[in-house]
Amino acid sequence: MTSFDSLWAALEPIGRNASSGGYRRFAWTREDATLREWFAGEAASRGMDVVVDRAGNQWAWLGDPDAAGPGVVLGSHLDSVPEGGAFDGPLGIASAFAALDALCDKGFRASRPLGIANFADEEGARFGVACAGSRLLTGALDADRARALTDVDGTTMAEAMAASDLQVEDVGRDDEALRRIGTFVELHVEQGRALVELGRAVGVGAAIWPHGRWRLDIAGEANHAGTTRITDRHDAMLALAHVVVAARASAERHGAVATCGKVMLEPNGVNAIPSHARAWLDARAASPEIVRAVLAEIGAAAALYRGTVVEESWTDRTAFTPELCARLSTLLRDAPVLETAAGHDAGILAAAGIPSAMLFVRNPTGVSHSPREHAEHDDCVRGVAALATVIEDLAG
Amino acid sequence: MTSFDSLWAALEPIGRNASSGGYRRFAWTREDATLREWFAGEAASRGMDVVVDRAGNQWAWLGDPDAAGPGVVLGSHLDSVPEGGAFDGPLGIASAFAALDALCDKGFRASRPLGIANFADEEGARFGVACAGSRLLTGALDADRARALTDVDGTTMAEAMAASDLQVEDVGRDDEALRRIGTFVELHVEQGRALVELGRAVGVGAAIWPHGRWRLDIAGEANHAGTTRITDRHDAMLALAHVVVAARASAERHGAVATCGKVMLEPNGVNAIPSHARAWLDARAASPEIVRAVLAEIGAAAALYRGTVVEESWTDRTAFTPELCARLSTLLRDAPVLETAAGHDAGILAAAGIPSAMLFVRNPTGVSHSPREHAEHDDCVRGVAALATVIEDLAG
Repeated sequence: MTSFDSLWAALEPIGRNASSGGYRRFAWTREDATLREWFAGEAASRGMDVVVDRAGNQWAWLGDPDAAGPGVVLGSHLDSVPEGGAFDGPLGIASAFAALDALCDKGFRASRPLGIANFADEEGARFGVACAGSRLLTGALDADRARALTDVDGTTMAEAMAASDLQVEDVGRDDEALRRIGTFVELHVEQGRALVELGRAVGVGAAIWPHGRWRLDIAGEANHAGTTRITDRHDAMLALAHVVVAARASAERHGAVATCGKVMLEPNGVNAIPSHARAWLDARAASPEIVRAVLAEIGAAAALYRGTVVEESWTDRTAFTPELCARLSTLLRDAPVLETAAGHDAGILAAAGIPSAMLFVRNPTGVSHSPREHAEHDDCVRGVAALATVIEDLAG
Repeated sequence: MTSFDSLWAALEPIGRNASSGGYRRFAWTREDATLREWFAGEAASRGMDVVVDRAGNQWAWLGDPDAAGPGVVLGSHLDSVPEGGAFDGPLGIASAFAALDALCDKGFRASRPLGIANFADEEGARFGVACAGSRLLTGALDADRARALTDVDGTTMAEAMAASDLQVEDVGRDDEALRRIGTFVELHVEQGRALVELGRAVGVGAAIWPHGRWRLDIAGEANHAGTTRITDRHDAMLALAHVVVAARASAERHGAVATCGKVMLEPNGVNAIPSHARAWLDARAASPEIVRAVLAEIGAAAALYRGTVVEESWTDRTAFTPELCARLSTLLRDAPVLETAAGHDAGILAAAGIPSAMLFVRNPTGVSHSPREHAEHDDCVRGVAALATVIEDLAG
């Protein structure tokens, strides 16, 4: 059994739904605590120092980043979406530990401190804000706003953090933690099939598409589903259906993506015409102009039904450090350089001016955020080797 | 204050949402118990005997329907849909008591026993089966099936009935209660605007359109909302949107109505492509053939996305007793004779062979199953007078 295999085997059962194979590893829950204990234990067994920053992110350090830093940092996150896959996040952390092990076995001695990060609450599945840990760290997410975010049960992020023994009053931008990061490289399972089509196991992430989240509200008029004539109806669900169809058509025409993944109807009764439809739209494209064009068309479709579209979050296009990307691509036998439509902690760090890049590991189906998310074992091993090569280069 | 006004004032606060003005009076809840106590108290104060049949329906009798029956029965129901209006159901019961009061004031003596019924669980809002009380009474709803029905909390109808002191093991068809009903006349707020257009306060219901309820299931494939290319998507919400649009188009073309009032998405996450959409369709038309034609087209639209459509309930066209309808129309100054698309307890009794008819009271907006459901006070008073006229004729 390789180091990667045993790391992976230990992660496998945590937060897994036995019947579906999907994962539920929400931030600041029991499952998350188990994952954080696993991270601290693996770091300690390798002689690494574990510190938690003011945003709740965990850092394992080999060498002293304050005295000899800044360091080279690998890592990703351990939380998941509801019914998520095993690879999105954990692959980056398990691969980082395994890469250190491989280098240690061959007697490599780093010239700089080496870190592995476990970013808290990357998916935002519980409190609604993605990359909450890295955004708090860099100050992109206001601490007061974060503390007040609530989950579906009404628990605030502050309460959830306090229950996990974080100093809630200290939460916020952490300059000390940021200063320790010389370079950040996040390995992640690919969410898409570009590497499949290129026939390569590992690629380099060069940019993240601009993306955002919008809330759509359409008012209808509650009425009897049987007796109300077609011409007298104001059916919020029918209006939503038209907007969803329009959103797809608009996205398709502009080469963007737009998704309505979450819907809530009122009163949601079988024999009542819906009086209100609330839905959330996720839209992304290669440029902000394209996303804005799609949103303008969706807004126009919603306006036909007097619906409103309100922006809940927006992340501009993020380019990773070009020299770093070029260097990684060369190092890894001219690995293909890809853009992605998914947000990542590496993007948050890059936007804060920290030299950052990503490595993607081939995903045979491209499926992610699903129990069917997958990476072949051989490709995971190639990812570990790629990370080891990167460390040798950046900290050799 | 008239008798009707004081009856109405006592009902008004029960189960009312103070902010919206909507009612939540689900069967076998605390609100329902309060309404049933009100009914028994009003009956007792008029010297009427109150009995509960094996289906849980309440009957108030003036005179002995076993010795001198069968009798003339008025009534309706007191339960509501979620966020329902004040009139759907309660208007028929308050008007019946007020009509008796009016006749009593003028010294009327009935030649036959007079009854007022409060049918249990007419809306089916809690356990999903409309007219559950009258269907159990006539045997149209199997007792074992009814007992096993569950609400959203997993409480069975048997448990809910037992908590309301019903003899759950005795629930079922009640021939003794049925034999007491010579004629049944249910007064109800109109759910539509036919009387508005005809300029009349009261009409006679002659038939109920065939109607049914179908469950629609469409499977998608969970995947990342950002990174999954348009061509790789199997988005269950987008498929549902197409089916909802198709259902409306089909209903419109056939002169029917079809409504998607309830939707549940999986996983219902903002950044996940929906892996499953479940929705309920309510469809009604003047003839069963039209409803079937609409359903065939909806089924074909769903099949494009490998969706399935399963019938959950079906009620055939119900004609009220033609001679009775004609007699009521003549009695009430040639009141217009209307068809309705809404199911009613009177329809269940008619289908079981009991002479039955309905009176409708004008609804200025036509809106029903909504806090905005309304009838003008003057029209309510005219409805009470109409009921009094009917009693004088049928039991004079």
